[in-house]
Amino acid sequence: MQVEHIGIAVKNCNDANHLFENLLGIAPYKAEKVESEAVNTSFFHVGNTKIELLEATSENSAIAKFIEKRGEGIHHIAFEVEDIYAEMERLKSQGFQLLNEAPKRGADNKLVCFVHPKSANGVLVELCQEIRG
Amino acid sequence: MQVEHIGIAVKNCNDANHLFENLLGIAPYKAEKVESEAVNTSFFHVGNTKIELLEATSENSAIAKFIEKRGEGIHHIAFEVEDIYAEMERLKSQGFQLLNEAPKRGADNKLVCFVHPKSANGVLVELCQEIRG
Repeated sequence: MQVEHIGIAVKNCNDANHLFENLLGIAPYKAEKVESEAVNTSFFHVGNTKIELLEATSENSAIAKFIEKRGEGIHHIAFEVEDIYAEMERLKSQGFQLLNEAPKRGADNKLVCFVHPKSANGVLVELCQEIRG
Repeated sequence: MQVEHIGIAVKNCNDANHLFENLLGIAPYKAEKVESEAVNTSFFHVGNTKIELLEATSENSAIAKFIEKRGEGIHHIAFEVEDIYAEMERLKSQGFQLLNEAPKRGADNKLVCFVHPKSANGVLVELCQEIRG
């Protein structure tokens, strides 16, 4: 398991790109709109992991609700796994509550599944696995 | 720059160790009390980075205040830098607000400095540098 990325909820991706470019001293290497999650994203490589900025494109987006409740800030930690189905089964058997029953398609060509923060010490955990082929 | 660790505020380190052991499938590799920050910490290796759990040992601890306000959850992202003094100067010149004027001694044999979340999109950023010699 590795930390594939850290997701950060932002109000405006352009403004945040500029801020994180100054903070990290590097430019984002890609931007991607994820229709299914109603977000615009941008990505920075930091060592062996990534920072993902997330801006809501609709007020029903989970990111819009997060910002309304808590303000901008760190939203989730994503762990890359070898076999997302097996990992989902393993976590369920340990009592973790999954937010989706089947993996769904996320940003960056990944299958993703989220673990409810209530079952993980307040941390929104994402499992992700690269879609091959 | 790399993500040295991700800090997570927890109410009880023992309980959280157990939970994260189940979540990550690995055991913590060390525990450390940091008197200056009034915290107990424990660390998990995850790929090339670390998860640091932080439990307050006093109600005046920043971690106690964080949990009181926001509940348990992701607390900060720590970036390892080569020269913390130079990096602090660089960030100040970019308009970032530092929470300590000089680096201080943190957990895990590091010099650390925090950037105010208000100047960093709601993210509490830690800069850290290994103490050599």
